[in-house]
Amino acid sequence: MALVVQKYGGSSVGDAERIKRVAERIVAARKAGDDVVVVVSAMGDTTDELLDLANQVSPLPPGRELDMLLTAGERISMALLAMAIHNLGYEARSFTGSQAGVLTTSTHGRARIIDVTPGRLRGALDEGAIVIVAGFQGVAQDTKDITTLGRGGSDTTAVALAAALEADVCEIYTDVDGVYTADPRIVPDARHIEQITYEEMLELAACGAKILHLRSVEYARRFNLPIHVRSSYSQKNGTMVKGSMEDPSVEQALITGVAHDRSEAKITLVGVPDEPGAAGRIFETVAGAEINIDMIVQNVSTEGTGRTDISFTLPKADGPQAMSALNKIQDAVKFKSLLFDDHVGKVSLIGAGMRSHPGVAAQFFACIGAAGVNIEMISTSEIRVSVVCRDTDLDTAVRAVHAEFELGGGEEAVVYAGTGR
Amino acid sequence: MALVVQKYGGSSVGDAERIKRVAERIVAARKAGDDVVVVVSAMGDTTDELLDLANQVSPLPPGRELDMLLTAGERISMALLAMAIHNLGYEARSFTGSQAGVLTTSTHGRARIIDVTPGRLRGALDEGAIVIVAGFQGVAQDTKDITTLGRGGSDTTAVALAAALEADVCEIYTDVDGVYTADPRIVPDARHIEQITYEEMLELAACGAKILHLRSVEYARRFNLPIHVRSSYSQKNGTMVKGSMEDPSVEQALITGVAHDRSEAKITLVGVPDEPGAAGRIFETVAGAEINIDMIVQNVSTEGTGRTDISFTLPKADGPQAMSALNKIQDAVKFKSLLFDDHVGKVSLIGAGMRSHPGVAAQFFACIGAAGVNIEMISTSEIRVSVVCRDTDLDTAVRAVHAEFELGGGEEAVVYAGTGR
Repeated sequence: MALVVQKYGGSSVGDAERIKRVAERIVAARKAGDDVVVVVSAMGDTTDELLDLANQVSPLPPGRELDMLLTAGERISMALLAMAIHNLGYEARSFTGSQAGVLTTSTHGRARIIDVTPGRLRGALDEGAIVIVAGFQGVAQDTKDITTLGRGGSDTTAVALAAALEADVCEIYTDVDGVYTADPRIVPDARHIEQITYEEMLELAACGAKILHLRSVEYARRFNLPIHVRSSYSQKNGTMVKGSMEDPSVEQALITGVAHDRSEAKITLVGVPDEPGAAGRIFETVAGAEINIDMIVQNVSTEGTGRTDISFTLPKADGPQAMSALNKIQDAVKFKSLLFDDHVGKVSLIGAGMRSHPGVAAQFFACIGAAGVNIEMISTSEIRVSVVCRDTDLDTAVRAVHAEFELGGGEEAVVYAGTGR
Repeated sequence: MALVVQKYGGSSVGDAERIKRVAERIVAARKAGDDVVVVVSAMGDTTDELLDLANQVSPLPPGRELDMLLTAGERISMALLAMAIHNLGYEARSFTGSQAGVLTTSTHGRARIIDVTPGRLRGALDEGAIVIVAGFQGVAQDTKDITTLGRGGSDTTAVALAAALEADVCEIYTDVDGVYTADPRIVPDARHIEQITYEEMLELAACGAKILHLRSVEYARRFNLPIHVRSSYSQKNGTMVKGSMEDPSVEQALITGVAHDRSEAKITLVGVPDEPGAAGRIFETVAGAEINIDMIVQNVSTEGTGRTDISFTLPKADGPQAMSALNKIQDAVKFKSLLFDDHVGKVSLIGAGMRSHPGVAAQFFACIGAAGVNIEMISTSEIRVSVVCRDTDLDTAVRAVHAEFELGGGEEAVVYAGTGR
């Protein structure tokens, strides 16, 4: 008998009918003999509706109360799901994040899980119940206040519970049947990926693939817990995320896939004095505003001026805050001007095999250029290469790269390169 | 500096605008120098909407999960209220029933408060915060599961917290400005009552006055805690519930007011064998179905038949369940038939002075008869006399009684009788 943790997102439990369908799926797993722990998000638009209510009451609601408010969402969906399971003749018990022992930091709105003490869940499983847990939420270890984990938090809840309960697998149900070599809405012949390493999945998630949240993959990697990403609307196998590229026995694709991201903006500081400490000052300021930046590019100093330009990308939503923080240090840092550009897109090529094939990056840049797309910024990692271009060129670039590396479904697109290690 | 507990019902926090208005009222109390603890119900129709969702998912949802679901309602309203107060520049912290230390029995849907351990609330008050607590909910002392207190539960939460925190007063805000000598919608010249004893308020509540729930008045009486019932839409004084009629220093009205109730039905068992144990068997059956009955009338045995009729009243909603339970014992108890009548109404006259004025009941029956209303059942207590009549006659009876005892606002209607004890 295995222990399976299943996670269903908001659209999977969007209304009463869908909740009943999910209940059937859970009961099927229980009937097959497995112990089942289910993590649910809030129903469909609940979170947005609650945020809307909050905004009607206060323009800047305090984090503690916002978390208290938003956690009502999963409370509703989990209780309904437990009822629907009861209705099928199986016992189900729902637990809040706090009851499930999800202990977090006290940073409201984006708390991090510190520890999971799933004693009550274990007790309910031992009594034969199906366990339902509210995703996205926990309780602060120090203040005992209710917290939320931020974007993608329910995935992280599921993986953290699976790790704490030593589950055999964590199944993440979503509206697609796994990870593809590119977004099928942009590339119609994108191929389904059956298995992928944690590292590749991390790069995909970091590069805009919305299928799994970065933090949940990091968590799974740390505990070596397999994640099965699959569709809540079909019985097909999805994508297994497991195995590390550090492990020589794991087969590695030369190229895994193409990711793209439209959620970033680019800020450019023009005419920054080319002297020690300037860049440090700038990025300390951005970090102080609690903004995560992605790519950074600094040009060589324009000859004779002693000045340079620095550009970086960041989430679009953080743009106004970053601009206002940087504005305040203009006199101190003595840069000339500040530009904000939210019409950029990022395309990335990911593949563990890239490490031993240095020609990949060159081929990537060449094919984007051949497609008529201008490259504005470049960044690379061991197993990834990314460029920033105009957002209007993004689809063209994605299709060109996908075709160039023969990732399409028409042929055996994913070449497994022996690691030779 | 006083400690005030305020309770706002669902209609007082029905939308964002009303929540902001309530926030202003709370801040005004804080500005006046009082420590304030606020108990809130769920917004307007939230509870009904959640129940509707539950019914879409399951025809008979398990109590544990229903409580988990419904408690989302107060979570939403209390967080929004705390935000609205923050917005006015005051610190507010919301707490669930469980966080507030409201420990209950584990009977889901109608748990009773066993104890209140308000350590976290005390801590927040000491730090200068306004405390907001979810009404209607608690946590079971044994199972640690979330519970709800059932109808009127938020009033009980408020009174229990006020008692535990040794508050100076518990203010119950509602949509009317207190208790009247009769329902002003039926009797236009009904008079506002400024002060009333716990015992009279208990009888009023038990007889259909919806202004305060029975259990909350019992609780307040036990701890000798004054309740101030007042309108959330005006600054007028409402009705103070305090003092016991057992206390000789408390002035007592001869007649306090007229209450009426349309929520009951009458069940009649026809031709019950007039032998020992029959009535016991019948009411054990009803009690076994967890139904509270109100009045019971047993006729004298019809001469020569050795059989009698037994009638009792109960909440309309419990009718089908009671009928089905009684049906099952028809053969065993050997009664002839079972009648169900939900077209009855109850009118009651309440007054602590009644104890020493035996003529009141006779005058009450006579004036109802003179108004052309037929009396079907009678019950009395030390300070109350009630009759059951046709529901269509109810308004006529209420008006006749109110006039007969000169309770109207035109003159000094409430006669304070010295207790002489």
